Amino acid sequence: MSSPVRSLARRITTITAHLQAGMARPKVVVTRNLGAEAMRLLDRPDLDVVAWQSETQPCDKKWLLDNIPGATGILLLFSEKVRREITEDATDLLKVVSTMSVGYEHVDIGSLAQRGIRLGYTPDVLTEAVADITVMLALMAGRNVKETTSIVQNGQWSAYPWAPYLFAGSQLSANWVHPTRTAGFIGFGRIAQSTLARLLPFGFTRALYTSNPSSKPNPARDAELLAKYAPQGLAEIRRVGLAELTSESDVVFVLAPGGPSTYHVVNEEILKSMKRTAVLVNTSRGSLVDSEALAKACREGWIWGAGVDVVDGEPNVAADHPLVQEPRCIVLPHIGSATNETRLGMATMAINNVIAGVLGGSMPAELNRS
Amino acid sequence: MSSPVRSLARRITTITAHLQAGMARPKVVVTRNLGAEAMRLLDRPDLDVVAWQSETQPCDKKWLLDNIPGATGILLLFSEKVRREITEDATDLLKVVSTMSVGYEHVDIGSLAQRGIRLGYTPDVLTEAVADITVMLALMAGRNVKETTSIVQNGQWSAYPWAPYLFAGSQLSANWVHPTRTAGFIGFGRIAQSTLARLLPFGFTRALYTSNPSSKPNPARDAELLAKYAPQGLAEIRRVGLAELTSESDVVFVLAPGGPSTYHVVNEEILKSMKRTAVLVNTSRGSLVDSEALAKACREGWIWGAGVDVVDGEPNVAADHPLVQEPRCIVLPHIGSATNETRLGMATMAINNVIAGVLGGSMPAELNRS
Repeated sequence: MSSPVRSLARRITTITAHLQAGMARPKVVVTRNLGAEAMRLLDRPDLDVVAWQSETQPCDKKWLLDNIPGATGILLLFSEKVRREITEDATDLLKVVSTMSVGYEHVDIGSLAQRGIRLGYTPDVLTEAVADITVMLALMAGRNVKETTSIVQNGQWSAYPWAPYLFAGSQLSANWVHPTRTAGFIGFGRIAQSTLARLLPFGFTRALYTSNPSSKPNPARDAELLAKYAPQGLAEIRRVGLAELTSESDVVFVLAPGGPSTYHVVNEEILKSMKRTAVLVNTSRGSLVDSEALAKACREGWIWGAGVDVVDGEPNVAADHPLVQEPRCIVLPHIGSATNETRLGMATMAINNVIAGVLGGSMPAELNRS
Repeated sequence: MSSPVRSLARRITTITAHLQAGMARPKVVVTRNLGAEAMRLLDRPDLDVVAWQSETQPCDKKWLLDNIPGATGILLLFSEKVRREITEDATDLLKVVSTMSVGYEHVDIGSLAQRGIRLGYTPDVLTEAVADITVMLALMAGRNVKETTSIVQNGQWSAYPWAPYLFAGSQLSANWVHPTRTAGFIGFGRIAQSTLARLLPFGFTRALYTSNPSSKPNPARDAELLAKYAPQGLAEIRRVGLAELTSESDVVFVLAPGGPSTYHVVNEEILKSMKRTAVLVNTSRGSLVDSEALAKACREGWIWGAGVDVVDGEPNVAADHPLVQEPRCIVLPHIGSATNETRLGMATMAINNVIAGVLGGSMPAELNRS
């Protein structure tokens, strides 16, 4: 369909929809079953909810395209690739798009803004769940968990008689050899700060971080954090260059956004500059870490081990992927925010966003496009 | 050899050894190579050190029996079964037995005391390493790590398209559904207290514990801990009965000593009383937990999952063991204290104990037998 014809068709659909809307409740399209507990919130007399019924399978694209026209609100996941369709097929009735995600790369922000359509998303709610798994991976990478659990699963435990250094890992917490510990954060947003808070009782006394080179230093924020955590032993928090961070840290946490500017920021050179007893943890985006380099670093002992929840090119990670093959590298299938509590929290926020957007209220989390 | 003959033989050996000792340095027998870094401490002109050369293989029993007579100090591991031989074959030269372990079930305390032989051991030094792994297992059990890592290792990641509750676990940290968290400790010694400290930034506000019924309540210690941790959010610390502990806690930590009085204290009834979202962690002794009951609890969803570093009957844990077979139960091969730092710390302490005992100084950790 050519653009003028499409434009005309949209106007006709809009008129029809407006006529129907005069008699009917606003239509809210929900592209996934978000679970009984969350979906109950949509069971309201003032909304006409059209929802895809499966929780595990994405919605049929034709179903979605058929439903976009006439919708006042659309709630979608980042798995829905409908940037163009929402812009072109949605009628002027559309007031709000709500995504159950922190990111919004799958939505055409500019086009929505131009048409005055509000955009809701779900920030913050996943911070604690991701910080949990970040600490977990630091511990697992240090304590040789992949190798030792594999021995148990294969029934080989009894083949390893006790010895002073059998299965001995690299200790995360402060100890008599290393009475202080240093955490290095590549990216120092909310998840990194929550991770730092969790590390303090492990005896971490220093936090080093790098930020986007174009971002301004934030000495006030750092002074506030230091004052808050000094009673628990934090002695230093400082923005540094990447080389200082990697050479000084006992754990390097990769917690920066993805995209071209951070692509493979963790490469052979960076890994070679780390301590041999240190571990690397990536719970942000796979694109930040060169998988081949990390596998080599683990294999050749440049670092003690690694734990990653994300892998460049995921989910296409085969059994012969170098990180999967590497005994000192734990690989999780991107479960950072995957807890029932957090996912229910994200679903609830996305639903409350779409309801508020449709009815004209204040949204729990609306993207500020300015 | 009959006892009187053995006794006579010992006297003769003693006299011979004393004669040699008049001319020679005191003999220190070390039953394992404790690594170059630790063994260097024994490289002294005033000691005659006889050490087994292998780090991974236990010493030959005949080698040990040949060396016990004439020794002034003996450093051994808990793998050495020489209770009777030390009592019967050691000459009166023997001043100290030093074990590289927290426990001393493998040593005849009474007989050593009777003969005025000092006993060194290695307490405390492993507390932080075990607390690390205790927190790690609580996280792993909640986040379905055994199932999810297995999917990745088998190259199946791409077969699981994103869905709102895919791989979703039970969150350890406080969250919008559960704004407070409760930790339950079966046994509340040093490792439990270090574990509690680590849990505070995860939003734990309550600590419940049980103690040996014959031990006196310790309200002063509890008040001190509460005062110390109140600024970090701890609101309650209380000794309770086991039923209250298991029904109220989001994580139940098994951290009590082994032995007949705690045998299978975690059984079907206890597991049934736990929350369905809670996890069980055992980093103390396998004998405290009924493995069949725990596997059933995981399988039938009485609890969310479990993480154990110790198993009843270890190290004889075959691939078809019910806990190894259970996807929701992580099993580690007793690596609680297995870090290079902690094991080196234990070796160093055991060596310093034996040196001080032989030369007549103050031992870093001498067992108070009174």
